[in-house]
Amino acid sequence: MLRLTVHRHFSTSSAFFANRAIVYHSNGNPRSVLSALTFPSLRSPPPNSLNIKYLLAPVNPADINVIEGVYPSKPSPTKLNSDNVFVAGNEGLAEVTGVGSGVSGFENGQWVVTGKQQCGTWRSGANVNVEDVIKVPKGASEVGAATITVNPATAYNMLSEFVDLKEGDWVIQNGANSAVGQAVIQIAASRGLKTINFIRNRENVDALKKQLEELGATHVTTYEELSQKSFRDKVKEWTGGKPLRLALNCVSGPETMSMARLLGSDAHLVSYGAMSKQPLSLPTSLFIFKNLKSVGYWQSRWYTERTKEEREKLMEVLVGLMREGKLKEPEHEIVTLGAGESDEEASNKVRDVMKNIMEGQYGKKVLLRLEGE
Amino acid sequence: MLRLTVHRHFSTSSAFFANRAIVYHSNGNPRSVLSALTFPSLRSPPPNSLNIKYLLAPVNPADINVIEGVYPSKPSPTKLNSDNVFVAGNEGLAEVTGVGSGVSGFENGQWVVTGKQQCGTWRSGANVNVEDVIKVPKGASEVGAATITVNPATAYNMLSEFVDLKEGDWVIQNGANSAVGQAVIQIAASRGLKTINFIRNRENVDALKKQLEELGATHVTTYEELSQKSFRDKVKEWTGGKPLRLALNCVSGPETMSMARLLGSDAHLVSYGAMSKQPLSLPTSLFIFKNLKSVGYWQSRWYTERTKEEREKLMEVLVGLMREGKLKEPEHEIVTLGAGESDEEASNKVRDVMKNIMEGQYGKKVLLRLEGE
Repeated sequence: MLRLTVHRHFSTSSAFFANRAIVYHSNGNPRSVLSALTFPSLRSPPPNSLNIKYLLAPVNPADINVIEGVYPSKPSPTKLNSDNVFVAGNEGLAEVTGVGSGVSGFENGQWVVTGKQQCGTWRSGANVNVEDVIKVPKGASEVGAATITVNPATAYNMLSEFVDLKEGDWVIQNGANSAVGQAVIQIAASRGLKTINFIRNRENVDALKKQLEELGATHVTTYEELSQKSFRDKVKEWTGGKPLRLALNCVSGPETMSMARLLGSDAHLVSYGAMSKQPLSLPTSLFIFKNLKSVGYWQSRWYTERTKEEREKLMEVLVGLMREGKLKEPEHEIVTLGAGESDEEASNKVRDVMKNIMEGQYGKKVLLRLEGE
Repeated sequence: MLRLTVHRHFSTSSAFFANRAIVYHSNGNPRSVLSALTFPSLRSPPPNSLNIKYLLAPVNPADINVIEGVYPSKPSPTKLNSDNVFVAGNEGLAEVTGVGSGVSGFENGQWVVTGKQQCGTWRSGANVNVEDVIKVPKGASEVGAATITVNPATAYNMLSEFVDLKEGDWVIQNGANSAVGQAVIQIAASRGLKTINFIRNRENVDALKKQLEELGATHVTTYEELSQKSFRDKVKEWTGGKPLRLALNCVSGPETMSMARLLGSDAHLVSYGAMSKQPLSLPTSLFIFKNLKSVGYWQSRWYTERTKEEREKLMEVLVGLMREGKLKEPEHEIVTLGAGESDEEASNKVRDVMKNIMEGQYGKKVLLRLEGE
């Protein structure tokens, strides 16, 4: 639990408006603890740092958990005005507006995304260490670039880091209509990999199946179908008996056990979420006799462990796919916190966004655009 | 399900007794399907083969499952007399009694164990391919050598193949009084590794704790203690906060989840059994945020995948530990099927052994000694 010994306040004057951030002083419900805070123009960037202006920052489910204090990654406090605050947000697209001495390879206008975890992206401007950002090559849309570091990166790495898959190989995944799931479908298709995709049954399930097939899914099916005894034969028919060696899981619970049973020998089950809120429960025999390996994937760890060159390479590959139209930006809605709005107005707007997200009102990605100078 | 199209029979005459095997014609309850079969003297060994005489062969739990037809490893049929039969048994110590042409490095009297899976060890004599046996160096007892290839090998490899453990590092395991568990305790102690060992609560639990401590266990504790909230603090006290990076599991079920929660980051949970008959159920967060890797270990796979040199090296290391008194032979009982007994008498004796094992009548390892010529 994070808690700072300062008081929350609203700056009600926008007379000296220059920058704004969405901040909190202690963990809690985002609908209560978040507020907008106006702060002055950035100074010239110190050596080895950059001034950046955020263009768009998404609201990801994990951001809510960070604000609540229940996520393993914790932000460090930042001094804004005379306040020690936590700036919310982990992902975002910015452009360079000032280059400190000793920095090479960056110029004003360069797009960057944040490579440091929990650095606070829901703000208009920031001064950042040059090591904490990753260059984004040209070719992505603003929305595509603002949402590139978490979901497409997770999808790309899960398809690359565990099993050496060749064209024509099969991947199986659940939660296939999640943001990561949709990226998996597209990236797999771009590599000639075939996918079996599980989704929950719902009204208009055929429309969703069609939508995922249009993204490149080879087969889309429901957990009800998975639970049928004959499903194993169906999979064999689809794959021609080629063993499945990679399963991606963001659901856990009983359906994931059924999915794991479809895997061949020496397969990896890679988990990156647990939407069912149930444990991952697997027959021990799969581990012993089929050499199943169950592992996790967390993109935050990847950024922490990998070099600058590896991070930049990842952005190049993903933007390359976007440029070729093989990786689409997510369906989205942009919420602008205008320069003309007071901090109180902006605070209320952000809290409304949180309320709607937490109640599942949006079916799409919400991105914040915080206007600044 | 294995089933041969021949009829079970008893050879009631021992006039031409030379060799005997415990065989079955189709899968089923070992108490019904096993019978003793007398067969003639071995011929001189063909090129690249050895004649061997089995000295002792243990009855392992997996042998029962193989006979029942529910184990992933299946034997191939063997022709004995004019019968196609399955010879039971997977593990055993034999001595070389004849060396075929083209074989180097073997002489009569050399001890060997079987490196080929499910080759049928419950027999007095056999002709085997030289590639299917592993030499056992001098220094082990008969019982120690006859039980070396499964349990001590499993223990040794699980401690070596997943995590690079240094002297003073900690290992945590459940089912600690199993044959593998006891080997883990001893092999870990011989390497200066410390162990936290879980056992079921029972009458005289203190006597069992003491016995395992005498084998070299650092701490022995029950699942009841593991389920207490304060247990995590106790472990921290024991380890001085050193993270646990290897857990060995032969139980699965809820206690294994509690054990896994004690692990530090980047740990391996290695499963080699599931005595609870419940699945291995783990919080997905351990995989994602703590980078837990859940894998299986099956000694049969190891023998299939590794070279002759690696197999021999393993035997050298394990016999070395036995020679130094660091790895004790298991508590055991030897059942001799005497040359003077008829096949019917021997059949009944073996079926009685199976009955007693399946009813849990023995608290120790049973080994068969099939007398032959």
